[in-house]
Amino acid sequence: MSRISVLKGKSPDYLRALADSLHAAMVEAFNVPPTDRFQIIHQHEPHELIFDRAYESQGGPRSDDFVMIAITAGKPRSTETKQAFYRCLVRRLAEAPGIDPRDVMVVITTSLGDEWSFSGGAPAATLLRGAGS
Amino acid sequence: MSRISVLKGKSPDYLRALADSLHAAMVEAFNVPPTDRFQIIHQHEPHELIFDRAYESQGGPRSDDFVMIAITAGKPRSTETKQAFYRCLVRRLAEAPGIDPRDVMVVITTSLGDEWSFSGGAPAATLLRGAGS
Amino acid sequence: MSRISVLKGKSPDYLRALADSLHAAMVEAFNVPPTDRFQIIHQHEPHELIFDRAYESQGGPRSDDFVMIAITAGKPRSTETKQAFYRCLVRRLAEAPGIDPRDVMVVITTSLGDEWSFSGGAPAATLLRGAGS
Repeated sequence: MSRISVLKGKSPDYLRALADSLHAAMVEAFNVPPTDRFQIIHQHEPHELIFDRAYESQGGPRSDDFVMIAITAGKPRSTETKQAFYRCLVRRLAEAPGIDPRDVMVVITTSLGDEWSFSGGAPAATLLRGAGS
Repeated sequence: MSRISVLKGKSPDYLRALADSLHAAMVEAFNVPPTDRFQIIHQHEPHELIFDRAYESQGGPRSDDFVMIAITAGKPRSTETKQAFYRCLVRRLAEAPGIDPRDVMVVITTSLGDEWSFSGGAPAATLLRGAGS
Repeated sequence: MSRISVLKGKSPDYLRALADSLHAAMVEAFNVPPTDRFQIIHQHEPHELIFDRAYESQGGPRSDDFVMIAITAGKPRSTETKQAFYRCLVRRLAEAPGIDPRDVMVVITTSLGDEWSFSGGAPAATLLRGAGS
């Protein structure tokens, strides 16, 4: 499950391309089933989305296209998998909707497999054999 | 602490019933004190809340009543407790505001007891003997 | 990375002061680099932000100035550091924008150092030697 935060002013088509590319990267490089797609987009006024724009120790510079992607994952991944995912993600977002890789920030939080119920009050384990996204 | 995400278009009464039923389920089945109630509702345009509508491996089908409930818990619970909570939650949401259990998704993230301060800069432990929600 | 949730009706100047004080407290007492500033503000209608207003076991009473601060941290901190941070935070928020400490709630979730990419698809570790905020 992902939360995507951007500044207001992007078109629905732009946001759809952003979400599509994020999901494609998760399927390609983060071991997520294609049908495990749950994404929430939050759009913000300039004074509601505060980020370091300068080129500093954490990367950048960042523009009005800055996107914060907060992912809640349902199982652990190796450092190598995470790093490959970051690279895949920025490549896909550069292709569509055309976001500069420097504008992409990712934060992953990992919860346990039994902390997910996708539907019907059923534990995720019975549906997915332990694999939440 | 819970974040509830739904599509725009629900009435305040509907949202209140949804939040009430979530809280009742947490008190009944998730070992949360009645006064520990902190809920945030996010309402979204259709292109801002993306979810798998088909009947697939993760359950469903899902409708415009889909609700994503993201809970940050303050102490570990057993798998049995979590599973009983999911069942209690979908039963209560079916009663009020009348949500199909297939439209209910839950994700829990568990943080540590010392990662909560409910008020006044005081650690939660002194208030609750270690029990955040 | 922090999410700040408040009731609608605050001015941009108020929100800026709130975010500034939060960041100052994180730099002063939570071991965060000054340039590591990423904050998202969510503003809510009264029926979208539900909190216990009474004086109860979790503190309070709470007013319309209630603020929920959800922090995703990138490395573990000691209980002592967390508790000093809570005290520093409510002191600074009382100074500016002038929030009663009883109206401040904090929840921290800690993820791993390799779960952060600040920019460019690069792992945070190469930028920050393992230290996300």
